[in-house]
Amino acid sequence: MHASIATVCLSGGLEEKMTACAEAGFDGIEVFEPDLVASDLSPEEIRARAERLGLTLDLYQPFRDFEGVTEDLLEANLRRAEARFEVMGRLGIDTVLVCSNVATATIDSDEVSAAQLRRLGDLAQRHGVRIAFEALAWGRYISDYRRAWRIVELADHPAVGTCLDSFHILSRGHDPAGIEEIPAEKIFFVQLADAPALSMDVLSWSRHHRLFPGEGDFDLPAFLAHVVRTGYSGPVSLEVFNDTFRQTAAGATAVHAYRSLIALADQTARREGRTDQLPTVPESAPAAGVDFVEIKAEDTTEVEIVLDQLGFAFRGQHRTKPVRLWSAGGARIVLNEQYARDLPPHVAGLGLQYDDVASAEARTAALGVTRVPRRMQAGEQRLPAFATPHGLELFFAERTRAGEPGWVDEFEHGLRATPEPDGVVAVDHVNLMSTWEDHDETVHFYTGVLGLEKGRSNQVASPHGLVRSRVLRTADGAVRLPLNVLPASRTQPTEHVALSCPDAIAVARRARERGMRLLPVPGNYYDDVRARFGLDPAFVERLREHQVLYDRDQQGEFLHFYTRQIGRLFIEVVQRIDAYDGYGAENAPVRLAAQSRLDRDGR
Amino acid sequence: MHASIATVCLSGGLEEKMTACAEAGFDGIEVFEPDLVASDLSPEEIRARAERLGLTLDLYQPFRDFEGVTEDLLEANLRRAEARFEVMGRLGIDTVLVCSNVATATIDSDEVSAAQLRRLGDLAQRHGVRIAFEALAWGRYISDYRRAWRIVELADHPAVGTCLDSFHILSRGHDPAGIEEIPAEKIFFVQLADAPALSMDVLSWSRHHRLFPGEGDFDLPAFLAHVVRTGYSGPVSLEVFNDTFRQTAAGATAVHAYRSLIALADQTARREGRTDQLPTVPESAPAAGVDFVEIKAEDTTEVEIVLDQLGFAFRGQHRTKPVRLWSAGGARIVLNEQYARDLPPHVAGLGLQYDDVASAEARTAALGVTRVPRRMQAGEQRLPAFATPHGLELFFAERTRAGEPGWVDEFEHGLRATPEPDGVVAVDHVNLMSTWEDHDETVHFYTGVLGLEKGRSNQVASPHGLVRSRVLRTADGAVRLPLNVLPASRTQPTEHVALSCPDAIAVARRARERGMRLLPVPGNYYDDVRARFGLDPAFVERLREHQVLYDRDQQGEFLHFYTRQIGRLFIEVVQRIDAYDGYGAENAPVRLAAQSRLDRDGR
Repeated sequence: MHASIATVCLSGGLEEKMTACAEAGFDGIEVFEPDLVASDLSPEEIRARAERLGLTLDLYQPFRDFEGVTEDLLEANLRRAEARFEVMGRLGIDTVLVCSNVATATIDSDEVSAAQLRRLGDLAQRHGVRIAFEALAWGRYISDYRRAWRIVELADHPAVGTCLDSFHILSRGHDPAGIEEIPAEKIFFVQLADAPALSMDVLSWSRHHRLFPGEGDFDLPAFLAHVVRTGYSGPVSLEVFNDTFRQTAAGATAVHAYRSLIALADQTARREGRTDQLPTVPESAPAAGVDFVEIKAEDTTEVEIVLDQLGFAFRGQHRTKPVRLWSAGGARIVLNEQYARDLPPHVAGLGLQYDDVASAEARTAALGVTRVPRRMQAGEQRLPAFATPHGLELFFAERTRAGEPGWVDEFEHGLRATPEPDGVVAVDHVNLMSTWEDHDETVHFYTGVLGLEKGRSNQVASPHGLVRSRVLRTADGAVRLPLNVLPASRTQPTEHVALSCPDAIAVARRARERGMRLLPVPGNYYDDVRARFGLDPAFVERLREHQVLYDRDQQGEFLHFYTRQIGRLFIEVVQRIDAYDGYGAENAPVRLAAQSRLDRDGR
Repeated sequence: MHASIATVCLSGGLEEKMTACAEAGFDGIEVFEPDLVASDLSPEEIRARAERLGLTLDLYQPFRDFEGVTEDLLEANLRRAEARFEVMGRLGIDTVLVCSNVATATIDSDEVSAAQLRRLGDLAQRHGVRIAFEALAWGRYISDYRRAWRIVELADHPAVGTCLDSFHILSRGHDPAGIEEIPAEKIFFVQLADAPALSMDVLSWSRHHRLFPGEGDFDLPAFLAHVVRTGYSGPVSLEVFNDTFRQTAAGATAVHAYRSLIALADQTARREGRTDQLPTVPESAPAAGVDFVEIKAEDTTEVEIVLDQLGFAFRGQHRTKPVRLWSAGGARIVLNEQYARDLPPHVAGLGLQYDDVASAEARTAALGVTRVPRRMQAGEQRLPAFATPHGLELFFAERTRAGEPGWVDEFEHGLRATPEPDGVVAVDHVNLMSTWEDHDETVHFYTGVLGLEKGRSNQVASPHGLVRSRVLRTADGAVRLPLNVLPASRTQPTEHVALSCPDAIAVARRARERGMRLLPVPGNYYDDVRARFGLDPAFVERLREHQVLYDRDQQGEFLHFYTRQIGRLFIEVVQRIDAYDGYGAENAPVRLAAQSRLDRDGR
């Protein structure tokens, strides 16, 4: 597969974009005309630079509003085209994207458009270039790829073929199966973009909300499979622009783009049985559970006090590093004070357990995820480590079916774990944070690389703006990672670790007896919860006494409470009753308001 | 008019919101239930606080999913309602908003909904409260205000009336004229929100894109006039939430909200002849021209060099302040080094000329715009000054029909203005900058307060993201203020002053002879311009030699060039040929890329 990308996907100048594409691993690029026009490199310099970087220049784009016009306009359009063909000659590009007329078409006729494309084809042939004609989803008359192909067929010219763009086809709900009726040699170019399911006009949707493959709701493996079945072997190119990528550094976007394209090729190859035509990467089952959570800070004392109050046992100090382990049941928290000067407590790492660590490691590495270097010493267990797009470090560990992981033995001088009745038994979920800039890439990382499932996107009102949230999880719920995107301004990023137990009130009571000051919940909340769910007043009084929150859905009930904030994180203790599968999202505004009050009052 | 606002409009906690509403001038508020639930003030404390602040508590909202349900669900809903009525009693609120059922309705019947509302009315009456029933635009069965009113009529209960919300009515395209068929005493509440014309699902449109009156595309004066004609005299309340207000400080949003409501009342009163029922503010014709532009910096030397190169004459030093005047034709630029420590050159003020300064001043003050204090000394002309929402200072001056403004005489030891042939004659436009936080308020200020017209919103691709832009102008083009909103990240705010002349190439040539280094324009741009417009090669060579850009539309042609950046601003010189009325927006990406290159290379 010849992996290509349009320069319009990236921010910055053309020089930066070319470097970023080459470094990310792309084979070629589409040159977006405005990028060329705004560049101070001459076409010859761009050509030479591409050669040095090992990039092919696959397409010149776009040429707009050509066909379906009156004869005098056609003459002007042919002159306009010829000037572009000359520039293409200087660049050494042999294919130009001609998209269906939006602005100036006045003639709605296959025959007229075909005849006009044929004249363009003659001109193109004289310049040694060819025309890839594409139906824009909002073309005035031609907005369906099948009609564009019919016109290309009618034009019947060796220099005239079609370009297929998944966005223009799938956004209109057109069946992509018709692609297989087009002979491979008449498909001159293929562009891919994903998009979220949105109900808005297709032009705004295209301009602001395209996504890389795997990040939206289109079935791109099915689309690509149709293309591959024709025998097409030309460039497969990403043409994705949205308000985020336009502002993100070109290098990061290009890496993200390349990973998403390779993951799509892999998925298509396997799902559609096309491993002979498309590249693959190693397969891996998703994680089987959370091995540990790593909390990092210059001083982790406050976290230790809270863990102790929640019934965790101190399991010792690492043999060779300033790292300590605490555990309660199967919940293990590693406190790391190494290289943490000036850092407040925050979630720095996450250990995931796998049945087959080698496959998970091979897949992650093959998809170009950066490894995190770790100093290994004699007798230590090797845990492969990777950097996620949002900065968290991930560690892959063997699943422990009974007992504790081997690496626990590296910690010395600790106490034995002594389980408390109805105490904390496991990590329920880890609520992580991403910025609007790295959010899409982060979601793609956890789903496209690690194979987690993507829940619905949700929005919670905080006192300072809406917090977007999306749960990433395994089907069985063994790994649950709600991922928040914070509003742009005035908010401190916070993350939290949620611990599960069979009796949240019991854990809260013991923690309070040990001196914990929980996050205060306002009295109005308990009046509301009683009215909303018709709860027994005595039960509501117990919730109120221990500042425990409540939720209920069709599947069951949920009790949970929060510690106060420690640095950039806090801890939640949750109790799931029956098959409750949510996260108490209804209570999040109450928590956010309470945190905001403490923050304001400097407590 | 009893001016009210829903607490959901503002960010922060309930206490902050109440203070902000009172300080902005509102008479009352709607208490949004989640704000109450998340507050640590008891209902009694909230009531007492409102009394102390002089705010009435006008509405408790919302109560959801009540009617159109089966009998057992109805029983539960009545219990749910009763708990709310008790809270309302503690708050001292006598009206609750009940919105049409979205989630749990299974019975699509006017009679059933009316009978169920009647039972709710009985319960409400026992608690001394009343029900304002509203059709949500996305209600399962009831989504039209006329149907909600039919059901209220059928319910025929003294404690059951209707609530009218402009968003729910106008977003569905329903004719608001039917409001006049509702007796005033059955309209229990009126809510106002504006919105931009967007094609998206109505729920997302409502949640994220509501605007204050005058900022969107709804005809709210017509809506409010229908309400007033019924004889309704209850609260007129703003219920506006969007992603921006949720993140903006409550105080600023409340001031903005109040101003928009009063401006709407004024506009409605005058346009619809309801000055007896609605408050008005003084009228004023829009500005007649630009008096001067004030550029401020610790050191303005670089600006002076550029003005000299562009043919401006130094007109002298102000008698009493460290302020200097330069002029060319009718373009006057004031350079201010007062209180400017560490500030780079930027546009700090704008003088506008009025036929009637007193009216303009009276209107602006009546709409609550903050005045800027100015030290006046004997013999100086008084220019009323106001602070705009985006930080610029505005000065109002008498129109000069012949000669120069009187204040020019306050500058001493300058040179006489000696006009150059085909030189700069006037300020064409001033391109200002706003942030995403203050943008809507800024647009409302220039249109709702100053009476400028609002052009279409436009988007320009810069190397670091899309720049949103909107032109604010007088109909005759005497004042033109394109307003840009910058992408959130990685961009330096820049503004520019555009000067008009009859021959841009002549001005560029003289400037270059005097040593000016213009913004460099890439060669590819001239190849493109020639191909795009089919221009004469010799003419294109002249443009290229002087780094002058070109545009053409149906009305005429446009030549323009840019200086390099000086601090946070640059200067543009423009030549409009025939009736060209644009700003060369097509060339903006080329300019932005060139600026970005200079910036990167530190030149």
